[in-house]
Amino acid sequence: MNGYDQIIFTRTVSTALGLGDKSVHKQETNMMDYTINRLFDSADFDDITKRTRAALADKGFGVLTEIDVKATMKKKLEAEIDPYLILGACNPKMAFEAIKIEPRVGAMLPCNVIVRQVGSGVEVSAIDPVASMTAIDNDALQSVAGQVRDLLAEAVSQI
Amino acid sequence: MNGYDQIIFTRTVSTALGLGDKSVHKQETNMMDYTINRLFDSADFDDITKRTRAALADKGFGVLTEIDVKATMKKKLEAEIDPYLILGACNPKMAFEAIKIEPRVGAMLPCNVIVRQVGSGVEVSAIDPVASMTAIDNDALQSVAGQVRDLLAEAVSQI
Repeated sequence: MNGYDQIIFTRTVSTALGLGDKSVHKQETNMMDYTINRLFDSADFDDITKRTRAALADKGFGVLTEIDVKATMKKKLEAEIDPYLILGACNPKMAFEAIKIEPRVGAMLPCNVIVRQVGSGVEVSAIDPVASMTAIDNDALQSVAGQVRDLLAEAVSQI
Repeated sequence: MNGYDQIIFTRTVSTALGLGDKSVHKQETNMMDYTINRLFDSADFDDITKRTRAALADKGFGVLTEIDVKATMKKKLEAEIDPYLILGACNPKMAFEAIKIEPRVGAMLPCNVIVRQVGSGVEVSAIDPVASMTAIDNDALQSVAGQVRDLLAEAVSQI
């Protein structure tokens, strides 16, 4: 059991959903956590990435940025890590509202959704903007962040 | 006075530094804030952006992502906002350490540095990773975040 597995198992309660031929485990969301997570057992990384993009698009999020963390670490540090992508997801209408309310909020945008290989599975984790924006003292912003969290949670459940 | 100006003036204490022919105001950093800010009066947006990139590079940050928020809002919503860039800055060594300590931290990476037009001035705001990562219950990560904050603060002061 490597470090990744330990974290997955100590942090989550997995329940089998039994969705046809897909062996899908959905983690119960801990709202005190800073991400909304879902672990796909024995899954293909590229397939989950594709499904994640489609689910995000369906909820109005465009992917504005993409970082291949594995490739970056290899190139910059000659370090080997498992496949790991950071997708920067943005719902323009929500982002526009947020910037009007809190001009510097761009320092926390877009909302990242990470896709990473964990053993033979693939985990998707979307940032919970309510948690990450706790540091911003702005009640109106928290309301928008709550709406974005709901949309991201719907996208993750739809993958 | 528009909404942006009000927020700038209520949040910051500006002190003229008198750096030669550049009229530079440096905001006192409020460590309870979520960004490290510096306002350049009567400045050119492209010039400040260029200097910001150079200062980040000097402190070991590559700019991995870039979002032209103004162009995005125009394209997606037909909305007009002032020039606003989000630069995604990453110090690969620090990011590698952070991911080892906290595998899902990519949901909060890279560290954003925003450059935005504020009246006739330009403000640069770098995320304070200590503040934004408050939501993550991981003491070892906070230590790395502190080191990154120091590097970002040095970069901002060097612009």
